[in-house]
Amino acid sequence: VRVGELSRRSGVAVPTIKYYLREGLLAPGEATAANQADYTDEHLRRLRLIRALIEVGGVSVAGARQVIDALGDSGRAPLELLGDAQAAVAPRRRPDRDTPVWRGARARVEALIAERGWLIDPSSIAIDLVADALAACESLQVTEVVNALDMYVDAAGRIAEREVRAVLDRPDPSSRLELVVLGTVLGEALFSALRMLAHQHESARQI
Amino acid sequence: VRVGELSRRSGVAVPTIKYYLREGLLAPGEATAANQADYTDEHLRRLRLIRALIEVGGVSVAGARQVIDALGDSGRAPLELLGDAQAAVAPRRRPDRDTPVWRGARARVEALIAERGWLIDPSSIAIDLVADALAACESLQVTEVVNALDMYVDAAGRIAEREVRAVLDRPDPSSRLELVVLGTVLGEALFSALRMLAHQHESARQI
Repeated sequence: VRVGELSRRSGVAVPTIKYYLREGLLAPGEATAANQADYTDEHLRRLRLIRALIEVGGVSVAGARQVIDALGDSGRAPLELLGDAQAAVAPRRRPDRDTPVWRGARARVEALIAERGWLIDPSSIAIDLVADALAACESLQVTEVVNALDMYVDAAGRIAEREVRAVLDRPDPSSRLELVVLGTVLGEALFSALRMLAHQHESARQI
Repeated sequence: VRVGELSRRSGVAVPTIKYYLREGLLAPGEATAANQADYTDEHLRRLRLIRALIEVGGVSVAGARQVIDALGDSGRAPLELLGDAQAAVAPRRRPDRDTPVWRGARARVEALIAERGWLIDPSSIAIDLVADALAACESLQVTEVVNALDMYVDAAGRIAEREVRAVLDRPDPSSRLELVVLGTVLGEALFSALRMLAHQHESARQI
């Protein structure tokens, strides 16, 4: 289809599509004439993926491109791609990590990983992100969140177990990789919104 | 203490503290001389709250001010404050909600609320945020996430039950309100990072 039709079907404005083409997020269509190109269902699907990353996941255009590049790199192992997707959706602001409180929090996360027998690459950014949150709780004396750590770990483990199984149940490698990325972003957005909803309910119920 | 000492203890640079004072995020210190003011532990605590919102929660300065203003408004009921905190940490980009897919997703969330007997204000932004995530899953045919909806709801409900109980266990109203805000932001950051960590483990284990 032509770019106008791609825009209509995806709900993405033509100038935005052209911007994604220039930025390399979207592969060029097949040229059919000067200044005219043909786009396929593959383009439509990719466009929806980009929109989900940016609009639902709050990922930057540069972050979305990193994810798209990693998806297109057939030499990239699923675990590496997972790391790329996590890095892209991770918060961009970083607290000061050169403090005793932060180092204590990081040691606590490492102890937790050892205790649970979790298989984690020591360079994974997820370890630092857990330490960021724990260190903030400690410096603000939000002991309730720190004390509930095991409950959070249990819940995260149960959810991740099912999410990873869903990825492996997909038949072909490229659709698995796509689910790694989309599941990271959309599962996160869905859970976060559901937690807000549950807070509303529990507050109304318990107060 | 003087502003230099406040900076040293909080780890926030003096120009940043002055910026927060100008923007009204931080109440002025008590003037002790021309161009000199005295800051208390209350300022230190508030400064840490602002940093947690901005650095851990990814909240904008304007969003942080909304939360701070709501915290200072003694006429604000806890449920209203919860709504303010949720609005401040909600993603700022919004997908197109004027589509049949989105309206279908919103109807599905309303059905879920009715089914669970959840007490939710129909104008709560959390309903729209859940619909945003569900609509994105549907338009990308990520059926796995949609099919796991009940699991996500169960997990969110269990976590929220405990989080709200922790708030009500605090003895005084102002520290309860602070935990509403901090729990929303820090609990979210912690859970999100733990889910990433659990993904790493489950991927390494199941592959």
